[in-house]
Amino acid sequence: MKQNLETTIALLERTPAALDALLRGLPKAWTERNEGDGTWNALEIVGHLAHAEVTDWMPRVQCILDYGESRDFPPFDRAGFWRILEGRELAEVLDEFSRLRLKSLTELASLGLQPADMDRTGRHPSFGTVTLSQLLATWAAHDANHLHQLARVLAHQYRAAVGPWSAFLGVMSCNGHSERG
Amino acid sequence: MKQNLETTIALLERTPAALDALLRGLPKAWTERNEGDGTWNALEIVGHLAHAEVTDWMPRVQCILDYGESRDFPPFDRAGFWRILEGRELAEVLDEFSRLRLKSLTELASLGLQPADMDRTGRHPSFGTVTLSQLLATWAAHDANHLHQLARVLAHQYRAAVGPWSAFLGVMSCNGHSERG
Repeated sequence: MKQNLETTIALLERTPAALDALLRGLPKAWTERNEGDGTWNALEIVGHLAHAEVTDWMPRVQCILDYGESRDFPPFDRAGFWRILEGRELAEVLDEFSRLRLKSLTELASLGLQPADMDRTGRHPSFGTVTLSQLLATWAAHDANHLHQLARVLAHQYRAAVGPWSAFLGVMSCNGHSERG
Repeated sequence: MKQNLETTIALLERTPAALDALLRGLPKAWTERNEGDGTWNALEIVGHLAHAEVTDWMPRVQCILDYGESRDFPPFDRAGFWRILEGRELAEVLDEFSRLRLKSLTELASLGLQPADMDRTGRHPSFGTVTLSQLLATWAAHDANHLHQLARVLAHQYRAAVGPWSAFLGVMSCNGHSERG
């Protein structure tokens, strides 16, 4: 389907509560184990989402509106979430993600974007011209991307424990598709 | 990690609220589209989870306790959820899943299972001997499996809309790993 601002926001506004319901109070055996060296645990995934609220999505929306294709998007460090995690428990990172997402969506609403704005363009440092509509669709799909990753990280913890059922659970065959910004 | 009853239940008791927070009120553009012929949409995924509460998990736990390996598990029809969906909106199916999961977990608690019970065995119709511990681990991993699928189904709706970002989102490369009961 085509990106539609209302449809996009409907998903974006639900993700923090969904992660909260799934992860708050869950034993660390689930939330602080990853899929092996160089992979993220649940805490880091939520940290990454919170960090992207500050440095990725709305700054890029604003960059398109202010500069169009005349300059590259500001850089986004996928692993720059360590500042958000520092000294925080998962419950606090969930609160922070909720707060930052609400702030982003409030700012987005205040822009009063119209359907015609969706075709406005900006310049991605890796692949050049992109539209505001593509950026907004990616914001929502990026939530789904990390929910997909999170579910896989959780399932991985019981990979051995499920015994022969492992072959019957598709998530156990998912090989952790890479993601870049 | 090893399956542990408390750890397993911690995940099982959170799944209905997580799905509720993500899906309740979400536009049908997200919840009633699938990944193509023969695949499930969000409504069907929740219906499948609700159906499994009635016909899969606790009946199999009880079968291990009552009959051990002397008889096969009762059959489970992966697509038998149509009765649960019939005439129901997504909000009602979410309510039904919540209610049935709570009922299952109440029954599970009433069994007073001890660590030694985890090694008790039953007979799966496809792959023979399995332990109660493996069955319980699979119950939790099966939740994660369908959360993983759901996230992929959501992302799929914006596959075209994200434009060049598609290559950067791992979920778009996930090819829908099969699952059997």
